[in-house]
Amino acid sequence: VKRALVTGATGFIGRHAQAALRERGYDVVGVGSADADLLQPAGARELVDRVQPTHLLHLAWYAEPGLFWTSQENVRWLEASFRLLHAFQGERAVVAGTSAEYDWSAPSPLVEGVTPDRPANLYGAAKLSLSQVAGHIEDAPWSFASGRVFFVYGPHEDPRRLVPQVARKLLAGERAAVSEGTQVRDFMHAADAAGALCALLDSGDVTGPVNIASGEPVPVRDVVGIVAEEAGAPERVDYGALPTRPGDPQELVPSVARLRDEVGFQPRYGLRDGLRDAVEFWRGEPLSPA
Amino acid sequence: VKRALVTGATGFIGRHAQAALRERGYDVVGVGSADADLLQPAGARELVDRVQPTHLLHLAWYAEPGLFWTSQENVRWLEASFRLLHAFQGERAVVAGTSAEYDWSAPSPLVEGVTPDRPANLYGAAKLSLSQVAGHIEDAPWSFASGRVFFVYGPHEDPRRLVPQVARKLLAGERAAVSEGTQVRDFMHAADAAGALCALLDSGDVTGPVNIASGEPVPVRDVVGIVAEEAGAPERVDYGALPTRPGDPQELVPSVARLRDEVGFQPRYGLRDGLRDAVEFWRGEPLSPA
Repeated sequence: VKRALVTGATGFIGRHAQAALRERGYDVVGVGSADADLLQPAGARELVDRVQPTHLLHLAWYAEPGLFWTSQENVRWLEASFRLLHAFQGERAVVAGTSAEYDWSAPSPLVEGVTPDRPANLYGAAKLSLSQVAGHIEDAPWSFASGRVFFVYGPHEDPRRLVPQVARKLLAGERAAVSEGTQVRDFMHAADAAGALCALLDSGDVTGPVNIASGEPVPVRDVVGIVAEEAGAPERVDYGALPTRPGDPQELVPSVARLRDEVGFQPRYGLRDGLRDAVEFWRGEPLSPA
Repeated sequence: VKRALVTGATGFIGRHAQAALRERGYDVVGVGSADADLLQPAGARELVDRVQPTHLLHLAWYAEPGLFWTSQENVRWLEASFRLLHAFQGERAVVAGTSAEYDWSAPSPLVEGVTPDRPANLYGAAKLSLSQVAGHIEDAPWSFASGRVFFVYGPHEDPRRLVPQVARKLLAGERAAVSEGTQVRDFMHAADAAGALCALLDSGDVTGPVNIASGEPVPVRDVVGIVAEEAGAPERVDYGALPTRPGDPQELVPSVARLRDEVGFQPRYGLRDGLRDAVEFWRGEPLSPA
């Protein structure tokens, strides 16, 4: 029997992982921070001893918006992740990586193993370290892959991020100020991101980094436009009212060839369906200060 | 007063570090594995509390020849190094990195921050992780640099490595079998490598990776040739008797611009003087089985 341990199972992506794994025939044990304190020296060992997983999907990490890029919590989570992998004696381990492991000044598409890695901040450096170190452990019982997550949206997203901000302003009858939004990015629904990571977990012969993305890159203003249409207020968006972030690359588009061809994953949500789902979620949430 | 803590102070490079730092006016506390067990969870904290250093030169690592490239001890030392840096509250930290952090298939010269990083084994991945993660910690009290060490020779080198092998065979009256040795490398005397790392420690405004090398690249057969001359037996070397290691890059030559111009370091040993020193050391050592 295949038994998957999912860390970060209550998180934005992780909340979709348990259903995706059960669909694939796994027994699943999902843990959040209330269930296991992986930052404690013995936390990982105790958890693994208790669950006895054959598969490990490690999504837990420090994720406080605005702070996670530079916080030293990244180092604590890196150490905790090493302890977790050290304790894990199953056959397959997958961790959540990030687009921030790449050199963002490299030309798109960003291709695993071809585009240079060059993280610009501590979050990217810590995630890259985890992926590189775990990927080079030759005498481990497990095969290892890292899912490099790009831009994810969906229900329960942190309200300080783009899609919730625009959706909530418009649903509240206010105007939404955004940048010109000409930058091209790849947006994926959180359920699809989870589905892709679970498919990767289920593909034991696929190793190394694999981009987790929809394969449907769009200018950010198109995302805002769809959100505004779904919120019924396309005329209340002020494009160009906010400055473009300096240094932001014009294009940040991943190759999805590995995910599509080696893992065999196809997203369920198109961009419009996915954003509609997100807007509907925010329609049901009261607008509190972000 | 400047007080330097040197880990790995009894090692091949570290044994030269204390004198180099005293020359620069530091109080120095050097520790080897007998003095402090950094692999214990509380080892780093206890050591730092005891020594109260303003400067940290962290050279200790797992270094067993033949095993260190792939051993999971690299992960243990990476974790220990994070704990050490976390405990350290001084102004300047320097760690020993490695040429193996670079993509060895990239064209020479290998330039810090320009040549892509792409370690091919766990040792390189762990050292790169340490350098990347520590280099991205923005709220630390210390400035950080990593000295990327290339090829080092000298007294006390492990007898299984090239220079000792050739020197000891020839000094014992035997023949020495080597490869064609056309590969071009940069060899540095261990005292100079230590001197360069100490100069980097003393250059608090130099951050990130800095190549530690002589700036005097040569074909490996020239190194063998000088060793043979200094051992008085140039006719007893069999070039080409051993195969060249497959995948070994023809040229692996670091830029030393940062070390020379930003750190201001110049090696004391030329290649012949340095190799003579090594051969004289081995002349004084009995030949035991390697």
